[in-house]
Amino acid sequence: MTYRAFINFLCLGNRAVTILNRSSGHIQMGIRNIASQAESGFNPAKVAVVTKMTRYEFEQQRYRFSELSEEDLKQLLALKGSSYLGLLERHNIHTRNVEHIVESLQKEGMEVRVVKRGQYDEETVRWADAIISAGGDGTMLLVASKVFNKDQPVLGVNTDPERSEGHLCLPVRYTHAFPEALQKLRRGQFRWQWRQRIRLHLEGTGINPTPVDLHEQQLSLEQHNQAHRITLMEAQRSEACSLSKPYLLPVRGLNEIFIGESLSSRVKYKSFKPHLTLSLHRASYYEISVDDGPWEKQKSSGLSICTGTGSKAWSYNINKLVEQAVGEVLRIGKAQMGLDIPLSQELVEKVTDEYNKSLVFGPEEGRMIFSIREPIVNRVFSSSRQRGFANRVCVRSRCWDACMVVDGGTSFEFNDGAIATITMNEEDQLRTVLLEN
Amino acid sequence: MTYRAFINFLCLGNRAVTILNRSSGHIQMGIRNIASQAESGFNPAKVAVVTKMTRYEFEQQRYRFSELSEEDLKQLLALKGSSYLGLLERHNIHTRNVEHIVESLQKEGMEVRVVKRGQYDEETVRWADAIISAGGDGTMLLVASKVFNKDQPVLGVNTDPERSEGHLCLPVRYTHAFPEALQKLRRGQFRWQWRQRIRLHLEGTGINPTPVDLHEQQLSLEQHNQAHRITLMEAQRSEACSLSKPYLLPVRGLNEIFIGESLSSRVKYKSFKPHLTLSLHRASYYEISVDDGPWEKQKSSGLSICTGTGSKAWSYNINKLVEQAVGEVLRIGKAQMGLDIPLSQELVEKVTDEYNKSLVFGPEEGRMIFSIREPIVNRVFSSSRQRGFANRVCVRSRCWDACMVVDGGTSFEFNDGAIATITMNEEDQLRTVLLEN
Repeated sequence: MTYRAFINFLCLGNRAVTILNRSSGHIQMGIRNIASQAESGFNPAKVAVVTKMTRYEFEQQRYRFSELSEEDLKQLLALKGSSYLGLLERHNIHTRNVEHIVESLQKEGMEVRVVKRGQYDEETVRWADAIISAGGDGTMLLVASKVFNKDQPVLGVNTDPERSEGHLCLPVRYTHAFPEALQKLRRGQFRWQWRQRIRLHLEGTGINPTPVDLHEQQLSLEQHNQAHRITLMEAQRSEACSLSKPYLLPVRGLNEIFIGESLSSRVKYKSFKPHLTLSLHRASYYEISVDDGPWEKQKSSGLSICTGTGSKAWSYNINKLVEQAVGEVLRIGKAQMGLDIPLSQELVEKVTDEYNKSLVFGPEEGRMIFSIREPIVNRVFSSSRQRGFANRVCVRSRCWDACMVVDGGTSFEFNDGAIATITMNEEDQLRTVLLEN
Repeated sequence: MTYRAFINFLCLGNRAVTILNRSSGHIQMGIRNIASQAESGFNPAKVAVVTKMTRYEFEQQRYRFSELSEEDLKQLLALKGSSYLGLLERHNIHTRNVEHIVESLQKEGMEVRVVKRGQYDEETVRWADAIISAGGDGTMLLVASKVFNKDQPVLGVNTDPERSEGHLCLPVRYTHAFPEALQKLRRGQFRWQWRQRIRLHLEGTGINPTPVDLHEQQLSLEQHNQAHRITLMEAQRSEACSLSKPYLLPVRGLNEIFIGESLSSRVKYKSFKPHLTLSLHRASYYEISVDDGPWEKQKSSGLSICTGTGSKAWSYNINKLVEQAVGEVLRIGKAQMGLDIPLSQELVEKVTDEYNKSLVFGPEEGRMIFSIREPIVNRVFSSSRQRGFANRVCVRSRCWDACMVVDGGTSFEFNDGAIATITMNEEDQLRTVLLEN
């Protein structure tokens, strides 16, 4: 067959376009509902409350799947060292906190829709003037992932403060005092916080602009069977899809973009047992150019590009040093410099603290930090800079079976021949609120 | 149903036993063949040569799968920015080097069996007096994974020295001068290198002692369909399998054991598309006790426990520091100490070098290094020691859907309730050779 026919035969261009329209879709819808709010305080008429799935619900769904009774579930959890009653208690705490939020909103005369994270979709986003995430940071990331309108406010309420951090949520005391938070919001006793987000352009070959949702941990059996009907040819096609001009992906990164090998597509037509797809230490090959600088070959356990919001999340854990390492470096340095001043634990803590602080920056800053994770240095690959600030990062994939994952929630194929351009844009800011404790 | 009946109903005990017998199986067989060699030089009568799968073969198999012609394959690779001829050239280099090895062995009157890595099995191990891995380190790890007899020598020959490092292989010059290597081996002009390996005992619940092979990236369609017949109930059962006394797993770790969350079993009955199973930054919860010390709660991107051999591999990349980080720590330390001595690039290099050297130790040493990967420190989790030497590491899983992966090749479920004891034992040494360059 001819080259052109071959590309056409392999492409999924139309699928890509559909998504483009869908996503720009909400942007228009959204503006109509909310534009008015931008100036005034927080006075939404319609609020969607998106709730997390608790571990209790997860286990229930999982075992109902295999037709076990409630009694069996108790025994099964006991076997696994988890307490059924413990999970139930956390579940009830979450549920009570959600009810508290909903009642508070209704008392203020707002129309409320409670949506389980599994049911959260574009329609909900279009309907709502504001969205409240009721769960932890994971739920907040999911909620934000579908919001493309910088005028549509998104709030996070941590519904289990004892067990989760909730960096993206309101101060924890408002979990139990939500009416007070609402009063402050209505009176404008808060500050809008515009969290910068990352946008992605893809071009070249070996890519598939169709996003795959990782957020949803549960699917109905039908969808499950659907998924199994995916043929290899389809996988082939998507893998070889070729885009002539940069394509703006229909997602925005609030925390980070992670690029890495998965190995899994090698085994995808072999089995879907979990183990077969775990290969965390498979090295990723790629070329990177920072702020239009020269292309540099890299081999590592992946590449992370984060926002100020994300600089406190995974990126922080990739880059931070523990006191043990800092202490050893200082000891070696002292010896090498021939100094014999004492090295106090206090000093080690100070240095560690100052070093780690340098890895964090503000959510509203229009720059990113890129981090080469576990760089592999050998005669073929150098690693001049392991991390740094950047306004624009370009990555050319040399991977066999890689993915580009946005906020650990949405994934895109990113194989040999694909080029990603990672930037920030004012339009993409997420509108959240900053409320004093 | 009763508790006991419930456990029985859920257990796979018999499957586990089968494996145990199989593995101890080769140990006896092996000794008969090879015991004599232990004293003398290297004079095997029967040699198995296990060959890697080249990228060319991989792509071919992959696309033959979807009934593409050789011509289509060329175009498809071109689309992905890879060169068909380039892959073919590397393939031919590998093939020539394998032929060179085989002919050299036959000239010495040895009986040779060439086995593709996909066909390498216990029967091959039983048959052979010695095994030669013809590929890179990955092939060597696969070969070693099936050898349980410390008297059965395993050699690695790097069949593509220009492209791979081959730390576990003979010096690269012997790739093209294999007869010379053979002469030295026969005359005993070498030293046996006994590489220590890690053994694993599993107990508790939430485990499945059945190993899953990740080494094989290719499977026949039949096996593929087999895999799809795995029912959820089966997954449930294995997950909840309960072992009363510690069970010695039928594998030995030459490089390392990695424990981490996979998320994938949450989506395994959803789809087997690669993306769905990639969630590299899902935190793993577990408790760890080093050298029978107190149990410490940990939350991190996984846990690695490596041998001296493995201390140059993944573990090294997890722990090593780049000059950028060392330079910053020294600068901060200098400032904090109020010193204004200059900080030369040379010093930074020296310190980095000395620090990274401290992460590596000899393959024959009977100790391990544990590394907590990207530890998460917050009000709930401390991280006193991120890494250190150990003779015995115990890990109690608090993970939902975790795996314990041996040398990136064999995986075991390791969920909530499971306890792993990680040690070293003289019996488990892998017998390799040290040949001067």
